[in-house]
Amino acid sequence: MGAKPFDTLRNACRQVAAWGYKAIQVPTWDGRCIDLKQAAESKAYCDDWQAVLQEFGLDASEGAFHLQGQLVAVNPVYDEVFDGFAPEAVRGNPKARTAWAIEQCKLVAQASRNLGLTVAPGFTGSLAFPFLYPWPPRPKGLIDAAFTELGSRWKPILDVFEECGVDVAWELHPGEDVFDGLTYERFQAAVGNHKRSKINYDPSHFLLQCLDYLEFIRIYHDQIVAFHVKDAEYRPSGRCGVYGGYADWVNRAGRFRSLGDGQVDFKSIFALLTQYGYAGWATLEWECCIKGAEQGAQEGAPFIASCIITPPERAFDDFADAGVDANKINRLLGLAA
Amino acid sequence: MGAKPFDTLRNACRQVAAWGYKAIQVPTWDGRCIDLKQAAESKAYCDDWQAVLQEFGLDASEGAFHLQGQLVAVNPVYDEVFDGFAPEAVRGNPKARTAWAIEQCKLVAQASRNLGLTVAPGFTGSLAFPFLYPWPPRPKGLIDAAFTELGSRWKPILDVFEECGVDVAWELHPGEDVFDGLTYERFQAAVGNHKRSKINYDPSHFLLQCLDYLEFIRIYHDQIVAFHVKDAEYRPSGRCGVYGGYADWVNRAGRFRSLGDGQVDFKSIFALLTQYGYAGWATLEWECCIKGAEQGAQEGAPFIASCIITPPERAFDDFADAGVDANKINRLLGLAA
Amino acid sequence: MGAKPFDTLRNACRQVAAWGYKAIQVPTWDGRCIDLKQAAESKAYCDDWQAVLQEFGLDASEGAFHLQGQLVAVNPVYDEVFDGFAPEAVRGNPKARTAWAIEQCKLVAQASRNLGLTVAPGFTGSLAFPFLYPWPPRPKGLIDAAFTELGSRWKPILDVFEECGVDVAWELHPGEDVFDGLTYERFQAAVGNHKRSKINYDPSHFLLQCLDYLEFIRIYHDQIVAFHVKDAEYRPSGRCGVYGGYADWVNRAGRFRSLGDGQVDFKSIFALLTQYGYAGWATLEWECCIKGAEQGAQEGAPFIASCIITPPERAFDDFADAGVDANKINRLLGLAA
Amino acid sequence: MGAKPFDTLRNACRQVAAWGYKAIQVPTWDGRCIDLKQAAESKAYCDDWQAVLQEFGLDASEGAFHLQGQLVAVNPVYDEVFDGFAPEAVRGNPKARTAWAIEQCKLVAQASRNLGLTVAPGFTGSLAFPFLYPWPPRPKGLIDAAFTELGSRWKPILDVFEECGVDVAWELHPGEDVFDGLTYERFQAAVGNHKRSKINYDPSHFLLQCLDYLEFIRIYHDQIVAFHVKDAEYRPSGRCGVYGGYADWVNRAGRFRSLGDGQVDFKSIFALLTQYGYAGWATLEWECCIKGAEQGAQEGAPFIASCIITPPERAFDDFADAGVDANKINRLLGLAA
Amino acid sequence: MGAKPFDTLRNACRQVAAWGYKAIQVPTWDGRCIDLKQAAESKAYCDDWQAVLQEFGLDASEGAFHLQGQLVAVNPVYDEVFDGFAPEAVRGNPKARTAWAIEQCKLVAQASRNLGLTVAPGFTGSLAFPFLYPWPPRPKGLIDAAFTELGSRWKPILDVFEECGVDVAWELHPGEDVFDGLTYERFQAAVGNHKRSKINYDPSHFLLQCLDYLEFIRIYHDQIVAFHVKDAEYRPSGRCGVYGGYADWVNRAGRFRSLGDGQVDFKSIFALLTQYGYAGWATLEWECCIKGAEQGAQEGAPFIASCIITPPERAFDDFADAGVDANKINRLLGLAA
Amino acid sequence: MGAKPFDTLRNACRQVAAWGYKAIQVPTWDGRCIDLKQAAESKAYCDDWQAVLQEFGLDASEGAFHLQGQLVAVNPVYDEVFDGFAPEAVRGNPKARTAWAIEQCKLVAQASRNLGLTVAPGFTGSLAFPFLYPWPPRPKGLIDAAFTELGSRWKPILDVFEECGVDVAWELHPGEDVFDGLTYERFQAAVGNHKRSKINYDPSHFLLQCLDYLEFIRIYHDQIVAFHVKDAEYRPSGRCGVYGGYADWVNRAGRFRSLGDGQVDFKSIFALLTQYGYAGWATLEWECCIKGAEQGAQEGAPFIASCIITPPERAFDDFADAGVDANKINRLLGLAA
Repeated sequence: MGAKPFDTLRNACRQVAAWGYKAIQVPTWDGRCIDLKQAAESKAYCDDWQAVLQEFGLDASEGAFHLQGQLVAVNPVYDEVFDGFAPEAVRGNPKARTAWAIEQCKLVAQASRNLGLTVAPGFTGSLAFPFLYPWPPRPKGLIDAAFTELGSRWKPILDVFEECGVDVAWELHPGEDVFDGLTYERFQAAVGNHKRSKINYDPSHFLLQCLDYLEFIRIYHDQIVAFHVKDAEYRPSGRCGVYGGYADWVNRAGRFRSLGDGQVDFKSIFALLTQYGYAGWATLEWECCIKGAEQGAQEGAPFIASCIITPPERAFDDFADAGVDANKINRLLGLAA
Repeated sequence: MGAKPFDTLRNACRQVAAWGYKAIQVPTWDGRCIDLKQAAESKAYCDDWQAVLQEFGLDASEGAFHLQGQLVAVNPVYDEVFDGFAPEAVRGNPKARTAWAIEQCKLVAQASRNLGLTVAPGFTGSLAFPFLYPWPPRPKGLIDAAFTELGSRWKPILDVFEECGVDVAWELHPGEDVFDGLTYERFQAAVGNHKRSKINYDPSHFLLQCLDYLEFIRIYHDQIVAFHVKDAEYRPSGRCGVYGGYADWVNRAGRFRSLGDGQVDFKSIFALLTQYGYAGWATLEWECCIKGAEQGAQEGAPFIASCIITPPERAFDDFADAGVDANKINRLLGLAA
Repeated sequence: MGAKPFDTLRNACRQVAAWGYKAIQVPTWDGRCIDLKQAAESKAYCDDWQAVLQEFGLDASEGAFHLQGQLVAVNPVYDEVFDGFAPEAVRGNPKARTAWAIEQCKLVAQASRNLGLTVAPGFTGSLAFPFLYPWPPRPKGLIDAAFTELGSRWKPILDVFEECGVDVAWELHPGEDVFDGLTYERFQAAVGNHKRSKINYDPSHFLLQCLDYLEFIRIYHDQIVAFHVKDAEYRPSGRCGVYGGYADWVNRAGRFRSLGDGQVDFKSIFALLTQYGYAGWATLEWECCIKGAEQGAQEGAPFIASCIITPPERAFDDFADAGVDANKINRLLGLAA
Repeated sequence: MGAKPFDTLRNACRQVAAWGYKAIQVPTWDGRCIDLKQAAESKAYCDDWQAVLQEFGLDASEGAFHLQGQLVAVNPVYDEVFDGFAPEAVRGNPKARTAWAIEQCKLVAQASRNLGLTVAPGFTGSLAFPFLYPWPPRPKGLIDAAFTELGSRWKPILDVFEECGVDVAWELHPGEDVFDGLTYERFQAAVGNHKRSKINYDPSHFLLQCLDYLEFIRIYHDQIVAFHVKDAEYRPSGRCGVYGGYADWVNRAGRFRSLGDGQVDFKSIFALLTQYGYAGWATLEWECCIKGAEQGAQEGAPFIASCIITPPERAFDDFADAGVDANKINRLLGLAA
Repeated sequence: MGAKPFDTLRNACRQVAAWGYKAIQVPTWDGRCIDLKQAAESKAYCDDWQAVLQEFGLDASEGAFHLQGQLVAVNPVYDEVFDGFAPEAVRGNPKARTAWAIEQCKLVAQASRNLGLTVAPGFTGSLAFPFLYPWPPRPKGLIDAAFTELGSRWKPILDVFEECGVDVAWELHPGEDVFDGLTYERFQAAVGNHKRSKINYDPSHFLLQCLDYLEFIRIYHDQIVAFHVKDAEYRPSGRCGVYGGYADWVNRAGRFRSLGDGQVDFKSIFALLTQYGYAGWATLEWECCIKGAEQGAQEGAPFIASCIITPPERAFDDFADAGVDANKINRLLGLAA
Repeated sequence: MGAKPFDTLRNACRQVAAWGYKAIQVPTWDGRCIDLKQAAESKAYCDDWQAVLQEFGLDASEGAFHLQGQLVAVNPVYDEVFDGFAPEAVRGNPKARTAWAIEQCKLVAQASRNLGLTVAPGFTGSLAFPFLYPWPPRPKGLIDAAFTELGSRWKPILDVFEECGVDVAWELHPGEDVFDGLTYERFQAAVGNHKRSKINYDPSHFLLQCLDYLEFIRIYHDQIVAFHVKDAEYRPSGRCGVYGGYADWVNRAGRFRSLGDGQVDFKSIFALLTQYGYAGWATLEWECCIKGAEQGAQEGAPFIASCIITPPERAFDDFADAGVDANKINRLLGLAA
């Protein structure tokens, strides 16, 4: 295919490497960075693609499929606004769109395998989100029905991921049916605790939900296989709280911010992830309504670098073990020989 | 009609008076407490009704029309779940249901006048609530269109309230389009700052939005004409934040509680309302997923009584005014005579 | 046996009832309130004993065996100071003292059955407490050895409790080997998760450890079978922290306080216990270095009464269930019939 | 005039540029940095002066007139201590001193114009400050009289600033009559909301007043035309609070600190100012009782640089606008075509 | 003199007793409650006066002399506003007014002795208060000079108090030169640590200074001989901080409040005072800009009663002392016999 | 002796200098860094030793003797675990071990003199630590006896330090009898406030005790002669508090951390130490259960460098002293000439 098709990729890589990043995330939805179908079908294409990255000393971190995942399940009230993310052929036809989305997700699994990637972050989509708040009173059984359906759609997709040896890392996100710990647990039950159904940890969405994002790691750490480093702040006023008054981002109480400008305690997050042995990438995710993208990107790489922790090889107080044997222990505790 | 129709009312009054309350709120939607149509049309009926209250030494505080107000504007996704609040004749027919609801609201205005009430709390209904969170990205103009429509539906109703000399007191509430300060300001703009469009202050809904409910009073105090005394608590965990994980009340991070059991700082609320000259009722509103209704009701009246503040008749440091005249002031400030 | 032996009991009951309490706790270690051996052996004695309580309208809540439990396991460094709690015959003879203590605990189980009590709070004793802080460095295996021994001593005792249908409720307490959640989990493993090994929840000991005593309930609620209502405060200074500078109680940073005078958030505790269905007694435990015992006791009963919550019989928003059927749910979620 | 007169300026510029600053502030009161009278009268002089700055790649940020502004209004109790800031000719003669100060301020306006500066920070002076605390009880009318006089003195000066196209930026500061939001509002009323009467935002003075300096920006942002970046901390003890026990700076509870060493949340300040479109200078102001001036100055420039935010050129979620038209909006909201 | 002169006193006593108070404070400045000169000179008059109190079962707690103390030292800037508190004869004549005030204070000492009172709360007056904030820069030596003068005026007065066996209890109060711990220490040095110069603890003035009023007790407890129970709150905004914007009380950030309505932690104050053995009165002081005086007074007595602590007669863990002798201690510590 | 014996030292110096440190601490207990006996006896040896440091541009900061100090006093329960720190000859023989330890400490004093060091940090050892918590109830007199003995052991050692002109800097540390302010005060009393008995300030041990480590400096600053810069964090959970559940470091609520990763507010510490004129070294102490030693060491030097404060040479507001004389002061205060 020649170098031409990779021009966009090459430009992105040049920029990303110049900013000091070590890898790029692969958005799989719009063909600008990668041709998903080719990648799923051709190992050779993937090798060529990876060669481009190597020109710049970069790795690929993960193949993201948020938009396709979203379209796997859509409540009718959102049909028209989500149609823009689907190819024209399936717009206005939810059934066809769902089928297309499911197919896409499977391609992501296959492409990831060909690219040598082991994790793919994405969205679950949503059937019940309009019923988020308990007013109007939710009909009994509504939530169960939504998750049952969600499970039946995702299980076959997860099976393909299993075949490909790739973990799905759900980005817990308002607007999706899986947006916090409780809904993740519901989903896991619905997919039979599928071994490829895991978590992409992004603290910004939790901070904006006023959820304890550090405790989240303590609870779910063995499910976390991806990590998006995104900052946010929550500053309520007498005019606006969590629901944000239908305002645009800059006027909401909760808003995304450039790394280091928000309230997320990344120092504690990196410490906890290190403590629990997380070994994946720390992927910058940037959205900010106050600082420009260029500055945000430039500051992001050194910010993340300053957070990275190399774990110790041995405990700091090893020296102090004075070698007491079992008899001595018994004596220390007052137990007869 | 005789005493019979007032049996339910009489029972309610007996109970309410026994608990130590001084007034009852009048729910206007289900006919159990009052016959709205009769009340709107007949001053005599209203006098009879008030006589029942006087038997028990009670006042009527306000005629509530939350359910009818809700039905003035309903996004289609909620049509089926709200239909249960409408009479069978208009179910499944949103247009007819809207017309019925508008008519009901006007009856509330007229009934209030006949009952000698000056304020009626209610809901605005909602067109845009499924688009609360900015994902999916909201089409430009969506929120403006929703409020324009909302304004055009409510303005004629508010005019009837104006004719009747009754204030509408919106209960700012998730699920309605008017749920915080910003949305209230949008609504006010949409109804041309109608002089009868005011606020029913209920701190519980603000606490559950993590909004600064004390600052709210400092900003909007001259719009507050009703006050619902309802408690709540917000206790996030690593599993659940503001959006509540689709859980039932007891398992949500935010939940309503009996008076005094939650986190609302009522002492400061009563102080601020007194400071700004609020002269209306403090109406118990009780919902609690942990304590029983009977105990909640019993504790509510003394709780509210302990919060009531009688404002001072003169400043405490009046005594200290030593009567300095203008010349003296000039000397104190170093100004020439 | 006549009324004479119960004079002390009768006096205690008179006092306790006058203060407004509904039950008394039964300390089993010193014979002043009950003759443990007789109670273990004679149902008739127990009936007489309960009759005394009934004279005053009191129940017995639980048979406490802290001091005997303590003596089941003692590190040699504490031998002399704990000897005072043992009968003279076994003082200076740890082995004999241990045997006596084990026997005592079994009597507590039997006495509890005869008294109709279902729970007995006590201490686990301690072998490893001098090695609390990791300096000197703890020999590897020391803690495991201590808990293995603890388990082997307590398992047979717990079996007797099982025979008698009585739960043991451990008071998690510094000085014992089981003093927080982690040590409780170690102990449970050591006794094979014995079904009679449960928790006596006393928040004062947790507050003085700066441990999250509310989260403790969320984690261990299904293990909590007894509840000691004891207050405490922790006020560090530049001179003194948690370890207390070897000071007496009044000069320590952490100190026990009369109910309502400390920092324990009892309102939240009672709410959580109610939420999780705790159905046992709320037992005043009073120790205070500032307020006198008489005043503390008088204030305790109304304080506890003001905390008690009667749970609801049905959810507050039952009214709102508008009866939507499965087809409607499918329509709401956009699922084909 | 030759280079000689600019030697002091040149030395200052050399130092300031070496530390990495981009501009210098121009103190106008003592002739060391600039000859105010010449600058007011001669554009040529100003051009020469600016040429010196250009040698070092520096801009001039603003002409400060704190001391002259102070002397526009002085309560007699402070006459002797402020006389030191006035030329000898007018000392001991408050009337003459006031006239001199007013003249000086007008020169500042003219000099600013000649220098191409658009903002001048200064003090309002004070008539009522000894009556800050309401003891002794303030005679009714005292504060009104003080502000009326203040207004009548400043209005003509502000008119000269208007002629010169220069904003006055009041430094809200204890010791002046305008020291917080309320007094600024009083002053604005007294000068008829003069369009040249604006705010120099300095958070250190607000932190030392325990005032919400972030909320201040939200309220007054459209009045803020200058910004002094000065840090401070407030650490109360059992011996000393806000009023500071007549102590020197190091022993007060509130004290100024070098940038980054105090408690001011500059990250949030720069974010808010950027959000509201502030386009002026961020001027280091350094006073510290603990760290030396040299170190403070060296650290100041990189500190400020690290805070500067380049605003975005377009919203981060522009990509997501899927282009929904009016008809679609109506459908989304359930409104008939 | 007959009963007539005591009519005002009798009315006050009737009211105070009805509200449930146990004693009245004696303001000595205006003759309404007591004739200071007669009380100072005649034990018989004082006996008659006390007899009135006994009619109502009341004690006298303390003779307050705030206004006379204030006039012992007045900075000239306040001369005119304080003149209203002096008799006409000495107005406009600071020297004569000072002499009169000193004489009054001595009468207070003598009257206190005749009334059997042991403590008298009052103000120190102020010479330096206009120089509270370090701008204008305070001339070196100013504060020292002020306190030297203050000491020389008060020492002879304190000697009279010593003759009468009465403590002076300074109310540390903004507007006076002694307003916090540091200024109290300066004053004590200036009066040679006079044994009758003590503290009247009033937390409201400390809270409004954002001073640590609990730590204050820990530091100065052995100087506290009187206690005014007065509540206050500090609620800063973006418009107003500690200095209060020259506003009236209701619009200031810090304001006095009725007991229980403010932020003072009285529970901790009473505990600390009890811990340190304070044995004097707890005197209600009421000023509130929101709640009326009548309600404030009614609520004050039960509020104070609920705070009173009866100290324990013996330590709660006395029981536990197992009587270990010196030899045993040596063994416990590992020391040879 | 040749270069050979200093190989270990040389390697350490090379590493430490490469990381950017300016000095090394001298552990005196194991001979790897220095031969204590030779250093105590031979100035020439010490000169050679210092020459090695000079090769790398390093200073020696202090001679640490924690392990020897520990062995001066050991409660029997810890005998076996501490024996590993003693030479084999005295193991199992507490008396001989104590004598050996005392001798070692004296050598440290002499070696310090020969090395030109003025401060030596160490441990006090412990007799009473098993009786830290008041359960079992501590026999009256136990703590007094322990400190009396401690004093009698340490006084002669401190005298040798006095002869050598070296301060002992106690590291206040759990496991030692001197672990906070109160126990330090007890110890000082026991050694007759020996002028060489001072404090090595290490905030990490205070943070883990939940003690106010900033207030500690305000109280004890004139006793602080050494400073260990060590970080820590305390993060309680529902399972674990201060006592740590017998867990290893990574699972405890309180744990040591690399500099900048914990919760210690070093910015405030360095400011306070500078304010009080501390002139000694800031010595990195590193223990971390999450980050590796290499990374910790690399980050430590720049972290400390960023905290160092150069104090000012003159007050920042000197400029403002307008030179007011005594007569003027009298006029300002209203005092007659």
